[in-house]
Amino acid sequence: MSKGKVYIVGAGPGDPGLLTVRAAEVLRGAEVVVYDRLVAPEVLKLIKRSARRIYAGKKIGAALVQERINNIMVAEAKKGRIVVRLKGGDPMIFGRGGQEAEFLVQHHIDYEVVPGITSAIAAPAYAGIPLTHRAHSSSVLIVTGHQAASESGKTLNWKAMASAADTIVILMGAATISRRAKDLLAGGLSEDTPVAVIEWATTRKQKTKLFSLGALADIQRAGAINPPCVIVVGAVASLAKKLDWFRVDGKTTLKK
Amino acid sequence: MSKGKVYIVGAGPGDPGLLTVRAAEVLRGAEVVVYDRLVAPEVLKLIKRSARRIYAGKKIGAALVQERINNIMVAEAKKGRIVVRLKGGDPMIFGRGGQEAEFLVQHHIDYEVVPGITSAIAAPAYAGIPLTHRAHSSSVLIVTGHQAASESGKTLNWKAMASAADTIVILMGAATISRRAKDLLAGGLSEDTPVAVIEWATTRKQKTKLFSLGALADIQRAGAINPPCVIVVGAVASLAKKLDWFRVDGKTTLKK
Repeated sequence: MSKGKVYIVGAGPGDPGLLTVRAAEVLRGAEVVVYDRLVAPEVLKLIKRSARRIYAGKKIGAALVQERINNIMVAEAKKGRIVVRLKGGDPMIFGRGGQEAEFLVQHHIDYEVVPGITSAIAAPAYAGIPLTHRAHSSSVLIVTGHQAASESGKTLNWKAMASAADTIVILMGAATISRRAKDLLAGGLSEDTPVAVIEWATTRKQKTKLFSLGALADIQRAGAINPPCVIVVGAVASLAKKLDWFRVDGKTTLKK
Repeated sequence: MSKGKVYIVGAGPGDPGLLTVRAAEVLRGAEVVVYDRLVAPEVLKLIKRSARRIYAGKKIGAALVQERINNIMVAEAKKGRIVVRLKGGDPMIFGRGGQEAEFLVQHHIDYEVVPGITSAIAAPAYAGIPLTHRAHSSSVLIVTGHQAASESGKTLNWKAMASAADTIVILMGAATISRRAKDLLAGGLSEDTPVAVIEWATTRKQKTKLFSLGALADIQRAGAINPPCVIVVGAVASLAKKLDWFRVDGKTTLKK
């Protein structure tokens, strides 16, 4: 029996130009594509017509549960098909790529990982924020603001983070930002610490909003910050004012 | 006067397939390319023949100093040329992209950033290590092991890092690994903490070596660990034994 193969592929942060050459090649050859929410339509256009497309969603309710995704991948690969599991950003950064790989190994399915550009890195880059900088930052922490994503039993140590990293990048943090800001203040960060919130990064809907950590702690949501967004905490965030280069219809995406 | 433009571009970690579509497009259109060490030869092949290529190196002595790189970019852009500043990995992760962007802004040169896949993310992916994992890790710290890269006046707080992040990725850490391991042990990490060292990640020379943090603290270098390498500290590192998928000439790159 000729066996298929599964490619666990990162689709990048939104801008279809940030897809890798390898990801584009693998997508074009796919016979089955299981794809997540937030994958750019231009990326999906690379899939050939004859391929089966399966939307895996990511919103609770409308989504295929993880178990079903796993079973589809294995069943299709066992039929000898080339399967692409397509995820936003990078598959190994809060993408559950690791668990899916474990399931494939358990079922003796051949697989390959194609890394993608994570929004944790691309969003700041498109907002004019270098995550490291000789004068301001030599360490970057990437973390999820979304409680449910931490099932390790360990609780995230926000106070330690405050002193451990010069730059903190929070993914999936819109709903919890005020609490996180308070935790980081309690950990010793100053109220003046610059924060950038980049919504819909690398797309035509990108907006960058600048705050101080103190102001964020007091925020009453109500549309002040909207998902999907990437939150950058640390001195480098203020460089957006100077280095912001991305334009949509000739306009800067930085809100003043 | 028609002005040129500078593209600050990440060339990815080594595997030329991990170049982005946008980076490939921009490189093909470049009239001047200033490139660093560790950019894959296959990537440089995209540059058109008529373009001027300038090797910026990165080794002390053999390298163009930063000031000269900056001046070349500005001078060429002012002549109206399309300049690509090509860096290994991502330009904003220990790539000095931020400082170069600041120089371009000061000189009123139009520029754009094209993020690249950083080896901090690709190396673990190619070694079968998911940086986050529901059971083991919901935070990732990326840091340099290279002292000189920290000029911010702040000293890196290795002890705080030990309690702040589930996974720690150290770049440029071959020379200092034993000291760093001791710092992390002092910070409270267990001697048994798994560590993976991935040399020449994503290339045909890739090798993955597994250690315990305790064993690394005692290491006497002498070829045990060689640059360029990416060091992954944390529970996820041990998943390489199970999830390792990358093959060179049919062989696993994991050393046993």
